[in-house]
Amino acid sequence: MGKSSFGNLFTVTTWGESHGKALGAVIDGCPAGLPLSEEDIQKFLDRRKPGQSRYTTARKEGDLAEILSGVFEGKTTGTPISVMVRNTDQRSRDYGNIAVSYRPGHADYTFDQKYGIRDYRGGGRSSGRETIGRTAAGAIAARLLEELGIRFCTYTRSIGPVSITEFHPEEILKNDFYMPDAAAAEKAGSYLEKCMQKKDSAGGVIECRITGVPAGLGDPVFGKLDALLAQAVMSIGAVKAVEIGDGMQAAVLNGSTDNDGFCSQNGTIQKTSNHAGGIMGGISDGSEIILRAAVKPTPSISRPQETVSSSGENITLEIHGRHDPVIVPRAVVVVESMCAITLADALMSNMSARLDPIKDFYGALR
Amino acid sequence: MGKSSFGNLFTVTTWGESHGKALGAVIDGCPAGLPLSEEDIQKFLDRRKPGQSRYTTARKEGDLAEILSGVFEGKTTGTPISVMVRNTDQRSRDYGNIAVSYRPGHADYTFDQKYGIRDYRGGGRSSGRETIGRTAAGAIAARLLEELGIRFCTYTRSIGPVSITEFHPEEILKNDFYMPDAAAAEKAGSYLEKCMQKKDSAGGVIECRITGVPAGLGDPVFGKLDALLAQAVMSIGAVKAVEIGDGMQAAVLNGSTDNDGFCSQNGTIQKTSNHAGGIMGGISDGSEIILRAAVKPTPSISRPQETVSSSGENITLEIHGRHDPVIVPRAVVVVESMCAITLADALMSNMSARLDPIKDFYGALR
Amino acid sequence: MGKSSFGNLFTVTTWGESHGKALGAVIDGCPAGLPLSEEDIQKFLDRRKPGQSRYTTARKEGDLAEILSGVFEGKTTGTPISVMVRNTDQRSRDYGNIAVSYRPGHADYTFDQKYGIRDYRGGGRSSGRETIGRTAAGAIAARLLEELGIRFCTYTRSIGPVSITEFHPEEILKNDFYMPDAAAAEKAGSYLEKCMQKKDSAGGVIECRITGVPAGLGDPVFGKLDALLAQAVMSIGAVKAVEIGDGMQAAVLNGSTDNDGFCSQNGTIQKTSNHAGGIMGGISDGSEIILRAAVKPTPSISRPQETVSSSGENITLEIHGRHDPVIVPRAVVVVESMCAITLADALMSNMSARLDPIKDFYGALR
Amino acid sequence: MGKSSFGNLFTVTTWGESHGKALGAVIDGCPAGLPLSEEDIQKFLDRRKPGQSRYTTARKEGDLAEILSGVFEGKTTGTPISVMVRNTDQRSRDYGNIAVSYRPGHADYTFDQKYGIRDYRGGGRSSGRETIGRTAAGAIAARLLEELGIRFCTYTRSIGPVSITEFHPEEILKNDFYMPDAAAAEKAGSYLEKCMQKKDSAGGVIECRITGVPAGLGDPVFGKLDALLAQAVMSIGAVKAVEIGDGMQAAVLNGSTDNDGFCSQNGTIQKTSNHAGGIMGGISDGSEIILRAAVKPTPSISRPQETVSSSGENITLEIHGRHDPVIVPRAVVVVESMCAITLADALMSNMSARLDPIKDFYGALR
Repeated sequence: MGKSSFGNLFTVTTWGESHGKALGAVIDGCPAGLPLSEEDIQKFLDRRKPGQSRYTTARKEGDLAEILSGVFEGKTTGTPISVMVRNTDQRSRDYGNIAVSYRPGHADYTFDQKYGIRDYRGGGRSSGRETIGRTAAGAIAARLLEELGIRFCTYTRSIGPVSITEFHPEEILKNDFYMPDAAAAEKAGSYLEKCMQKKDSAGGVIECRITGVPAGLGDPVFGKLDALLAQAVMSIGAVKAVEIGDGMQAAVLNGSTDNDGFCSQNGTIQKTSNHAGGIMGGISDGSEIILRAAVKPTPSISRPQETVSSSGENITLEIHGRHDPVIVPRAVVVVESMCAITLADALMSNMSARLDPIKDFYGALR
Repeated sequence: MGKSSFGNLFTVTTWGESHGKALGAVIDGCPAGLPLSEEDIQKFLDRRKPGQSRYTTARKEGDLAEILSGVFEGKTTGTPISVMVRNTDQRSRDYGNIAVSYRPGHADYTFDQKYGIRDYRGGGRSSGRETIGRTAAGAIAARLLEELGIRFCTYTRSIGPVSITEFHPEEILKNDFYMPDAAAAEKAGSYLEKCMQKKDSAGGVIECRITGVPAGLGDPVFGKLDALLAQAVMSIGAVKAVEIGDGMQAAVLNGSTDNDGFCSQNGTIQKTSNHAGGIMGGISDGSEIILRAAVKPTPSISRPQETVSSSGENITLEIHGRHDPVIVPRAVVVVESMCAITLADALMSNMSARLDPIKDFYGALR
Repeated sequence: MGKSSFGNLFTVTTWGESHGKALGAVIDGCPAGLPLSEEDIQKFLDRRKPGQSRYTTARKEGDLAEILSGVFEGKTTGTPISVMVRNTDQRSRDYGNIAVSYRPGHADYTFDQKYGIRDYRGGGRSSGRETIGRTAAGAIAARLLEELGIRFCTYTRSIGPVSITEFHPEEILKNDFYMPDAAAAEKAGSYLEKCMQKKDSAGGVIECRITGVPAGLGDPVFGKLDALLAQAVMSIGAVKAVEIGDGMQAAVLNGSTDNDGFCSQNGTIQKTSNHAGGIMGGISDGSEIILRAAVKPTPSISRPQETVSSSGENITLEIHGRHDPVIVPRAVVVVESMCAITLADALMSNMSARLDPIKDFYGALR
Repeated sequence: MGKSSFGNLFTVTTWGESHGKALGAVIDGCPAGLPLSEEDIQKFLDRRKPGQSRYTTARKEGDLAEILSGVFEGKTTGTPISVMVRNTDQRSRDYGNIAVSYRPGHADYTFDQKYGIRDYRGGGRSSGRETIGRTAAGAIAARLLEELGIRFCTYTRSIGPVSITEFHPEEILKNDFYMPDAAAAEKAGSYLEKCMQKKDSAGGVIECRITGVPAGLGDPVFGKLDALLAQAVMSIGAVKAVEIGDGMQAAVLNGSTDNDGFCSQNGTIQKTSNHAGGIMGGISDGSEIILRAAVKPTPSISRPQETVSSSGENITLEIHGRHDPVIVPRAVVVVESMCAITLADALMSNMSARLDPIKDFYGALR
């Protein structure tokens, strides 16, 4: 598996640097016959686009998706879908101090340690713009899942110390933070104002709930659905923790309070609770999948910070320009994208788990 | 990548069911020339062996590791190492009610949904005994890392509501829970006694600290070192959350408090804090790697539970036999094993990240 | 993908050395519900067993297959199937001159160059006994394909200069060489007698014909079905060439003679010829798949050979003991096994090539 | 591994259709610090460009390579290199009869069988233009190998019945066919003239010789270097056979004539012959690697052919437009590219085969 690739049957390979010519993704293994347009992808990209509120960077990027292959007459053909987004806001700039200094909280130092060379312009490959490729791929995965009745509800659960206390899905699109709680969103706004005044930044928690997922996805050992989701979501820059279902809280519960029982109603087996977050033994159980990701505060803050230059001198660094005081709202669609990609892959892989459907597919007698 | 395989260069494939003939692992890609004996593996297996304290299941298994291939005259040969552990405690038993009922908190239901058939004896493939293969492989990975000066300190951070408040590494092996805090271990014992009286069980948190890890391991996007660790550890049955560095706490910090600065001392660049847990932008930064895993309470409890039979009847289930009231202590070595496997793979992969070492290796002029 | 693994969904990992404790394979991803017994595997192993005619090595190995996991009550469970064959003929021996010399035509030298250490006993990992794992896995793949009506006819096409001139499938099992031509088999026997008198050995060509393969298997670019078959078969030790359909002969034909036309009979589309060998653009076309493998002569010959010791001295080597004067007959089942594994994997992968069957499988409305 | 991806550490993913917007490749895992320019890639693309002689299609494509990512200030950065070639010759055309008929020798039928939809314009994904991505990637791999002193000599060995009888490397670039034998090239030209008069086409054999390959590349079982080369080269459309060293001829030799002995000269071990083609037991032995690929005749011929429409009617098809009467010369660089990609990957993978170099790399004491 390539280092910049994810998935086994529905595979995504991303490429591109923040201030290079373009960024993009190659989505391979997408089933043929799926209706797909650039608008489907654009809708996802627009959810992570900068410049949409006073809490996100003012960098203006059209971030327009162009499909270069794999779609013919409005439908996928089964061949690789190449999506490209040109970088348009490439004003020539003085990147001088970023080029020769190691920003706290950033990957400058580790890239230099690993590769000995670094495209320092805007963070290069380690920039948040890398998520454009994931989001384009996520849009395609979500389009596929939509055909199967799988629906996502992804939102901000907290920003800094401000958590939601109510859940009104219809509120999610009504505030700058994708929070399902208008009062919490207002408090989050006030909190961020204070952070900005202090030239500081904030983190938060994103929650993703997925309904309509059939039972049976995922594999018993290393390919557990929760393990793959954990890799997928932890691979998003700035994510520092992933929880499934009760998550960290499970550690303080007892078996009697954490176990999900089953009951039968009209011949249908259902769970009586969902502490597990929709996954048992690594395999989806048909109930809602619940996942949370902790996002660290934006590392680029405008107050002076102590650090070193790449030649090893102690320096005080000031990062200029406007940066998101919080990236959580823009990361909501990225978390959703990674979950969608993971599920699309698991759905396809699961089709050959039993002999009988294989015989059905190939027309053999059962 | 096979569903029961993990890793790209240092790969592990596990197999086996709880009450089948044997369990094992095939470790492929282990470098040639590593001194390795069955004792190296046995030491790890003994750390997860049942029957060692009153808080673990009384099932007696020798769990003796047998190396079947890949080692010659005491050293690895570079070819696959096959390790097998025979199941010896296979008394014929009445598994009746497990065979036809869905235990709360277990994978019985999802296995049936996925495969339509299930080796119900002792949980089959979804049993905790599956971790024998991981642990054997982890022992080999750890043996390799030891040669490079990489050291693990893995321990129980909390059991139920009882957390450590002090850290004395020398205490870890002195109590039944692998806790680095004797007082906390005593409280944890008392807490578990109460759980057992109530026919209930508990979970906990395991922490893994790894020192001596060179900078540069991991890849920028989907192959981030933290993402791979997250998959590795979340793939352990019963783990419901994985944190790196500050983990969930990062979400409530500010950039100014979460950012790790750098300083230069005598020409050496060091971090002035380690909120990131040793990984920046998905690449190790040379400081201590810190990871935590939340383990849910043992689902097998002896009090009656409401559930359904596989034919869809509502039933009250009583699970007989002795089960661990907490699996956290036995899972400590499993978490360490998965981290070791992940690092071994990342170490090998990183060797070709730059042109110059490739030229050195092959004797080309630089 | 591990170095000793093959396949993406139906994956095979083999392990073991010629004179180690055992050899085996882990077959992961085999669909659940397939009836499978040790006898199914034994039948395949017996086809490659030594000591069956005067033209194969006299080494006596029971080569008994033991299934250690993944099968429950006579059916596969979807979890990894571990198959082991114990090495029984491990008389302690003087391997001295093999240990310190490089046999012509063998891998002694390259193993030393790569690993710096080598299990020299009987060739270790580079021995033909390595194919035991492949053959056990092939038996399982073939058992799966049988359920879908896919049938193999694999045989010896030539031994040394003696080629078949007629094709009578019923003859294949009636002679020592698995040749479908009794007269050719007799000539081959005479030819081998002469080789043995001269202390020399012979090679040959194996042909595999597969019927009942549905159209649609394989992927357009790197995952072409013929490319995967080529890797699979070329990975068998001693195979030096792989041909599909017309093979090398295609290079001297013209488009007008090599192109396979189509015709329609009673509404069914069929090919009017099969120069392509059943694969067009890397995808199976529903007609017979035809593949040939060239097998080099057994490198172990009893006449003295000039070579070097591992310390770099020119020596004359005499290889003692009895060796197969030709390995072609025993390799027939190995070629069949590798083709079966490749097809099983391709069959499973192909199920998610289109949207509509995915919707059918998951019960979504089309 | 994605279906359109190849390689494990040095990975290539290609995308694009013949008459879509563009074609390209993402090359991931290329070591950082390699000097690389668009000219390096263009040189390879120019070797496969159409319109260069009267024996290749007149289609005019600039086929200009654009590097979109992964290169900074003239050197690779270790991140994915995205290369794109825009399709410029996209005159709107009447593809009518290709859209609804199955061309003999083409993949139209199998694509429809697999996907139910097909980008029929110019063959879509199954077009020879797909090799643009491979060739761009091959150029990068070859640039890497060049740094290590590995050199390729790839040429046409035969066209139709005309084979080279002499080998003068300096002739290769002097004739339209990349043949190392001027007289054979002239005969090949005459032969092709006759084919063209008959509205027919020809195939041929390409040979690739690689010098400077260090011993030790490749892995013992499924990852044998020859097996990976076989997959790589057989995955090129129109290739029907792959030979290593003696190839098919090995089947008629004896052990005494096929075995390569060793000798020691001034303390250096060398082979006394090279029947194996530079690979023993799947591992390179340091001598020249020799590989041949049989290329079938161009399936598009202008004489009428009997076939069927996609709706199942028997039809006579005439393919208009100019097509290469032979694709062998343009495929020479594609074979070289696939071999270069395979070797680059094997070189990187081999660096971790032994413990000692790992210790050296990470500065541990040996």
